Amino acid sequence: MTRASSHYPLMVVGTVAIDSVETPFGKKDSVFGGSASYFSYAASFFTAVELIAVVGEDFPGEYRKVLEERPIGLEHLATRQGKTFHWRGKYGSDLNTAETLETQLNVLVDFKPELRNDREPEYLFLANIDPNLQMDVLNQVKRPKCRFVACDTMNFWIEGKALELGKVLKRVDMIVVNDGEARLLAKEANLIKAARKIQRMGPGVVIIKKGEHGAFLFQREQFFALPAYPLEEVFDPTGAGDSFAGGVMGYLAKTGDTDFENLKRAVSYGAVVASFTVEDFGLERLRTLRAEDIESRLANFKRLCSF
Amino acid sequence: MTRASSHYPLMVVGTVAIDSVETPFGKKDSVFGGSASYFSYAASFFTAVELIAVVGEDFPGEYRKVLEERPIGLEHLATRQGKTFHWRGKYGSDLNTAETLETQLNVLVDFKPELRNDREPEYLFLANIDPNLQMDVLNQVKRPKCRFVACDTMNFWIEGKALELGKVLKRVDMIVVNDGEARLLAKEANLIKAARKIQRMGPGVVIIKKGEHGAFLFQREQFFALPAYPLEEVFDPTGAGDSFAGGVMGYLAKTGDTDFENLKRAVSYGAVVASFTVEDFGLERLRTLRAEDIESRLANFKRLCSF
Repeated sequence: MTRASSHYPLMVVGTVAIDSVETPFGKKDSVFGGSASYFSYAASFFTAVELIAVVGEDFPGEYRKVLEERPIGLEHLATRQGKTFHWRGKYGSDLNTAETLETQLNVLVDFKPELRNDREPEYLFLANIDPNLQMDVLNQVKRPKCRFVACDTMNFWIEGKALELGKVLKRVDMIVVNDGEARLLAKEANLIKAARKIQRMGPGVVIIKKGEHGAFLFQREQFFALPAYPLEEVFDPTGAGDSFAGGVMGYLAKTGDTDFENLKRAVSYGAVVASFTVEDFGLERLRTLRAEDIESRLANFKRLCSF
Repeated sequence: MTRASSHYPLMVVGTVAIDSVETPFGKKDSVFGGSASYFSYAASFFTAVELIAVVGEDFPGEYRKVLEERPIGLEHLATRQGKTFHWRGKYGSDLNTAETLETQLNVLVDFKPELRNDREPEYLFLANIDPNLQMDVLNQVKRPKCRFVACDTMNFWIEGKALELGKVLKRVDMIVVNDGEARLLAKEANLIKAARKIQRMGPGVVIIKKGEHGAFLFQREQFFALPAYPLEEVFDPTGAGDSFAGGVMGYLAKTGDTDFENLKRAVSYGAVVASFTVEDFGLERLRTLRAEDIESRLANFKRLCSF
């Protein structure tokens, strides 16, 4: 393998899943999902991205082919005996929060990510997964060659693995969480204060995703607020947050710039990519997306927010 | 009375109240409140405003003096036998929604606003009050001399006086409601679709207030999204929506321009004035506010939202 083909500026560790999703508009089993799937597909519009994850023997070849459509490195997508991680969730009429009906960890239980030692990503994203796995990967990348590490997490880990998560937070440059997670993590209802508290836990950059209400970005003392791109039809919100993070990190890795002004641009790209994701089940909408669709929606978005 | 002193470009009908407010930061009785009080005080930073409302014999002279601090016309602030309208509410830790614990209509029950016929406001706001009272006032202003009429409402009227409210909506140019009210009024969970449905009920301009998440503005096919001004300390959210509306209408009346670009500016002024209101109980923060504080926060706000 040549150097060129094995170099991915961005790396993500997370889940690749088979989901069952119920929304007010329909119910679908065997939807291709997982935090790392959404993240990498979204990021691939900006840069080549390597995916670190595990699937079971039941993982359909057609799903692998979906990822192969894009510049996504699959050498570290391990296949293990057993079944692929499965999530079943349901959205109410406001589409803002999913109720988790079932989680089957399956092959995730024994997952131990091992990176080939020629892997030197400059940007690393620790998607929503057990903080111990996030730490495993973090320990295998070389700093400061890997110049920017970001993570996501969820209530389950904030409540159940606070200590382990705390260790991860000390070593990341950025965290991307939703408003409920930020409040829980900081034990603070006011989101601005919550972000300031989270910054003191480690990550200098804090992004708070607020679903249909947009996102907040904090870097040191600086602050940026962005509404969500307005959509009349939200079909399935699954993966919106992971696509958002993928857009943000993909854009950062592409531009190689994490100054505040560029972070703002990255957040706006993330919001736009996420706005496409929710227009169909799973990755379906992103599969027909073109780079020019992103640019055109971003231009429209800027127009809608300027005053 | 000279012509100059009796001319108010903006008029508001609504409640003047004595509130009891409980927030996570404290509990206070006898807070000066009411939709028309907050509205007129906020609007007075931009234009002279006439207040149409009723109070009881218990209304403290010191509260009247608060309104007299500003260019607020009080000739139509009627005093009737009985007690002033009283609202008691409580905010939970997220400070987003008030739980109404008690409402005593008192003098509002028999209120019948009667305008002196030399009153010719160009801008009229029908604040949150019984749709029948809104209609009474609407019937007494001369169109098209009164060139722009806007209204607010709440769940109580949407559910209890749908027919009367529907008639008001047919005759207003703009409605200012919060997200929950918009969803209820349109029977539609998606806010963009809800706004489009409300536009078809009458008002060409729809503003949806989303509390800490900002606001949406719709005029014909046009759309504008604004985050809320980020505050680390929200002390008492009572009156935020009415101050917002006061800022919007005050700015429109001052500039005499209801084109989309100016509506956007009006909404941003409304958001800034509301952000001051919530920094203290009742009208206390607005009483020490200066025009330059508004301009300086607006400049900062623009910076926080631009990308």
